[in-house]
Order: sequence, then C-alpha cells, then structure tokens
Amino acid sequence: MALRVGVIGGGQLARMMIAPAVELGIDIRVLAEGEGMSAQLAATALGDYRDLDIVRAFARDVDVITFDHEHVPQAVLRALVAEGVAVHPGPDALQFAQDKLVMRARLTELGIPQPDWAAVANVDELQAFLDDHGGKGVVKTPRGGYDGKGVRVVRTAAEAADWLADLEGDALLVEELVSFTRELAQQIARRPSGQMVAYPVVETVQRDGVCAEVFAPAPGAGERLMRVAEAIGRQIAEGLGVTGMLAVELFETDDERILVNELAMRPHNSGHWSQDGAVTGQFEQHLRAVADLPLGDATPRAQWSVMVNILGGPAEGTFEDRFEAAMAEHPEAKIHTYGKSARPGRKVGHVNVSGNDLDDAVYTARAAAAHFA
Amino acid sequence: MALRVGVIGGGQLARMMIAPAVELGIDIRVLAEGEGMSAQLAATALGDYRDLDIVRAFARDVDVITFDHEHVPQAVLRALVAEGVAVHPGPDALQFAQDKLVMRARLTELGIPQPDWAAVANVDELQAFLDDHGGKGVVKTPRGGYDGKGVRVVRTAAEAADWLADLEGDALLVEELVSFTRELAQQIARRPSGQMVAYPVVETVQRDGVCAEVFAPAPGAGERLMRVAEAIGRQIAEGLGVTGMLAVELFETDDERILVNELAMRPHNSGHWSQDGAVTGQFEQHLRAVADLPLGDATPRAQWSVMVNILGGPAEGTFEDRFEAAMAEHPEAKIHTYGKSARPGRKVGHVNVSGNDLDDAVYTARAAAAHFA
Repeated sequence: MALRVGVIGGGQLARMMIAPAVELGIDIRVLAEGEGMSAQLAATALGDYRDLDIVRAFARDVDVITFDHEHVPQAVLRALVAEGVAVHPGPDALQFAQDKLVMRARLTELGIPQPDWAAVANVDELQAFLDDHGGKGVVKTPRGGYDGKGVRVVRTAAEAADWLADLEGDALLVEELVSFTRELAQQIARRPSGQMVAYPVVETVQRDGVCAEVFAPAPGAGERLMRVAEAIGRQIAEGLGVTGMLAVELFETDDERILVNELAMRPHNSGHWSQDGAVTGQFEQHLRAVADLPLGDATPRAQWSVMVNILGGPAEGTFEDRFEAAMAEHPEAKIHTYGKSARPGRKVGHVNVSGNDLDDAVYTARAAAAHFA
Repeated sequence: MALRVGVIGGGQLARMMIAPAVELGIDIRVLAEGEGMSAQLAATALGDYRDLDIVRAFARDVDVITFDHEHVPQAVLRALVAEGVAVHPGPDALQFAQDKLVMRARLTELGIPQPDWAAVANVDELQAFLDDHGGKGVVKTPRGGYDGKGVRVVRTAAEAADWLADLEGDALLVEELVSFTRELAQQIARRPSGQMVAYPVVETVQRDGVCAEVFAPAPGAGERLMRVAEAIGRQIAEGLGVTGMLAVELFETDDERILVNELAMRPHNSGHWSQDGAVTGQFEQHLRAVADLPLGDATPRAQWSVMVNILGGPAEGTFEDRFEAAMAEHPEAKIHTYGKSARPGRKVGHVNVSGNDLDDAVYTARAAAAHFA
C-alpha cells in the first residue's frame, strides 16, 4: 500500500504538495477548512483543525500528519502524539513557530544571532526597551501573525497601547529595529532520523510586509555568507527538533551580520523557486522529510532562479485571458496558480524563471507576473 | 471558472498530467476504466470508453476531451465532435494513430521517408512482399498493438498464417525489415490554432519490444539529424492535423537515413525525460496544446537527460523498501511511480536523471531503477 501523508489545511502549500506526491506515489490526503480550497483535489475531509475529534478522525487513515500552516493548537497536536500518531513537525518543534516569544527565548539559549528583543507586558516596559534602542522598535504579537499582520514599527510605547490593553496577562514581543541591507532566507530539510539537506541561501524582497520576489541563490553571496546562513539553518533545525522543511528568514545588516527574523516549519514562499529551479523542490522535499524517506538533492538546476508572486489585482480581463497572454509572451516562465479568486494583494500564484542571466530571469518573471497584477 | 480538461483513460499518462494541471490551475477530470487506476486521484467518472453514453456524459462537464490512450472508437469520437465537443487530438488525426495501414498510406501521400510497406490480405501477397525484400519483413496488425504486441518479424508468410486466417476481409501491414543502427523519437506539440513546438530528437532503447531507456538529446546527433527529425515531426503534425503531443518513432539507418516507424498522439514514453529535463515537460505541454493555450519552452534544462523505465520485477522486499534504497543512494534521481502493483516486465514507474555528463546520468538512472527490477 502506498504511504499515506495527511496534510492539515487546504491552502496553496498543501496544493503544491499534490504534484510531487503523485509522482512519488504518495497517497496525499488533505483536511481542508471548507469546500473549494486550493488543495481541493486531494481533500478527503472537511472541518475545523482546532477540533480534536475531527483531526483525530482524519489522522486515523494516514501514516503521518503534516501541515499547510502552523495554526493547529498544541493541545490537539499533543493529544495526537500521545495516541501514537506520527506528527511532523511535532508539537515540541512547532511551538517555536507558533509563538515568537518562545522562539526568541530558545534561539537565545542556542546562541543564534538575532535582534535584541524583550517580552513586554505594559507601556513602561515597552518604553524602556525603546529608550534603550534609539527610540524605536518592532512590536509583534507573539501568536497568529503572518504576512506582515501582527507586526508594527513603533517610536513610542503609546503606539502599541491597543495591543497592550488586550494582553490579559500575556506579553508582547519587542525587537530592535534592525538596520538591514536586505532580507535573506535559508531553507533546510530535516528527517526524523536526523538527515538534513540545505538549500542555498536566497534573497527575499518584501513589499507591504508580503514576500514579493525571491532571487536564488542570493546575488553576490560569497562563500562566507552561504556557510553562515546554512550553519544557522542547521543549528536551528537540529536545536528545535524540526522535521520537514524549515525556513529561516534572515536580516543581512550593514556590518555584514546575519540575524534571524522569523521561522516557518513548512514549505515557504521563499522556497517556491525550488519547484522548478532545484533538483528537488521544497514540496517534494517536505514530503520526503515528514515521511522519513531519504532526502533529495537540493542543488540548483540553473545558475539563477527568480520567483515573483502573483498578487491578484484589479487588472482587466479574466484570469484566463491574462494567463494566456503571460504564456504567449513568456514561454519559459513557469506559472503556478493556487485556484483562488483574485483580489488585490492576495497571493493567487507565482512565476518561476531560471537561467544563466539574473537580469533576464528577473525581467521575464516580473513581466509574466505583471499580466495578473 | 478554471478550464476543465477531461482525459479518457486512467493510466499513467493521465496520472502524469495531474501534476502540471494542478500547477497550471487546470481542472483535470479523468474517465477511468475502473477503480484503483493510476490516475485515480483525478478520476471523476468510471466506465467503458467504447460506450458513447458514458463518454458523452463525461464530456458534458469539461471544456475539452483528450486521451490517455488511442483506443476510443472513431464512432464515439465522431459523435462527440458532431455534438460540438472539443476533442484533441480529433478523430481525423487520431485515425492515423489507430490504424497503421491508414498511417502508412497517409505518410506515403505526404512523401515522408518510411520503410517499404504493403497491405497484404493473404499468404501469397505476404510471400511476394517478403520475396521482394530479401526474404524477411515485419508483419503488424494494423490496430490494437502496443509495446511490441501485434508485431512479428517473419521470414516466410506461413509465420503469419494465424493472423491472416483471422482477417475477415481486412489486411495486415507488412514492412521491410529495416537495418537500423538505432531508434530515435521526435516529439512535437501542436495547438489547434497551429502553433508548434519541437523537442530535441532523442535516442530510445527498446528491450523485448518495450521502451527501456531514453537519452535526450540523441547522443552524437549533429545539426543535420536534429533538423531532419524536427522537419519530419512538424510535417506529420501539420499534415495529419495533430493536436496535443505527437511522438514520431524513427529508425536511423546504416546509410544515415531517417525512417518513420510508429506514431503516438499523446504524451509518450520517449518524452518522460522532459518532466524533469526540459523547461516545459510533455505532460504540461500536452495540456497547454489541447486547451489551445500558448505552448511552453521545450529547451532542455541540462546538457543530458536520461530516462530509465522501472519494469516491476521479482526483486525482494516491498516496493517501499526499494524506493527508500533508491532514494538514499541516488538523491539526484527523479523517481516517478504509476501507482501500479509490480509484476515482471510491467512498466510501474521511471527514473529521470539530468546532468552535464551523459555516462554519469546513465549510470545513476540505471542504478536507481535497478532497485525496483
């Protein structure tokens, strides 16, 4: 019988696991939040991932549980593990992706370079941190933020007063506002048995808090940067016991330091380039990792790969018309769609282009994506 | 609403259309012959493809019909077309892939180089052809053969007496036994609107009448061979009105002639390398072509790509154990499985390997595939 992998969550990350699952011969099953989700083709169950009974019933028919997102509650995850279900990444690892304060504390223990940070429970504590850090900082809600949500740059504590008022005994995370030259991301795959494979560090470009473009490998990255980024990724994957794909978002600073910004324990937007640009794409690699199969080669297939997100916009014409125009003008562009209705700023797909000339690849990927924006 | 492509037949070719369909955002639906077929994930209907009512009901909910195989009867295809269904390739083209005598006659009209051939209805006609061709020939049943079935090399007409006795007014095809140095295959994609894209000609290695290995591009192929093979492919695609993928199997002779052996109007075993080795794989290309979307770039991603079929054999251990061993030893091998139970000689998957060294790629692909044989 084929190996059965159950994915909790029916979004585009689950959708993009379908293609490699079919080729590998893995029976992929998805617990989707509702009808018509991105991963509908593989949806075998519908329901609330916060409901243990629903998740338990879904888990009964698969060999391993993994995720489209990091929002399944710890109580649900731990109940599954207690009942003998293989869950990857497991709750002990996933807590660090679910709570940014827990993550910061653990990275501090591990000695991983990161921005100065503090847990602050009130205006005075926050103001003290800001005063110590040049009168500015980044305030984050520890849980539930993504794509720039739950993140606020502040210059006085009053600017976070609303969040502080809602805390009910918890704390906010405040971080030093890092003066960075660019953002990078390091991806690592890790099997339960410990094998790890590193992707080359990439440059990510954010717009309005959302990933817009990725260049792989990071242009101008020398051997030192590649090595440092990979070492950080490996140390975190091992130190946090991550299984599956880990993405480490990094700041590169003016003074050539590399600091950890965020973590994701799943395939990540910064790794979409690898679908077409690496021997083993991140979605195949995630499946291999969570199923504890030997990992694939993460070597790039071309000198450069560029990923540009398609943010569904107000362009005229149907999605299909634009699809046709993009394909006609850019036959070398690999267009990936998420089966979502377009609305401004919503990630509805992405374009990958690989080649030996970075400028050409960037131009083509942007031009193809522009048909949809 | 997403474009809906309906595939008749639930075999591995339909299965391998699923991955690119998901990425392109095409709603792929499969009419499978039964439960548990290779393309089960996308199966939305079950039934006999020779039954017009079943096929008509399936066609009602899709925008275009295409195929996993070439066995749907002309009567069914023509009824669909008469009712306004888009069918690609259409019956006018498909007849040339369904009947080798019709194909030979049409290629003769088009002036395409091919082996000497004749339609023979009895022992005397067959013996006369053999006598004219050095006392040997290849006898083929015009319809229904594949993977070496329905093909017999004979030295006297008596060796085909059983087939001749069953003819009931039809004829057999007899062809000159070509003295070839190797077999090649040329793939062409063609849209209904006429756009064509050619893949580089490849070398195919057959064992016991079944495709065993493919080297892409054909080693040692000079510009002349590439050009001649592509021209033959384009002329056939256009002359026969093919839509979708066309594979032209070719003989390369001692005296450097290129002769057409067989045709297939669908993705073909000789093109599996392109899934990982070309910018646009043949399964994506077929979907683009039958949906009349602009065709993708067919440029190889690497200097060499090698495909080795996995012929399910009597090896010890479970399929999963062998899968794990193959992955562990060959992380750069792309393993594709068809979800079929293994039995000796049955195609149950294939391995693609790309790289800049042909010998290395051949070694790795064979070694990975050998874990399954």
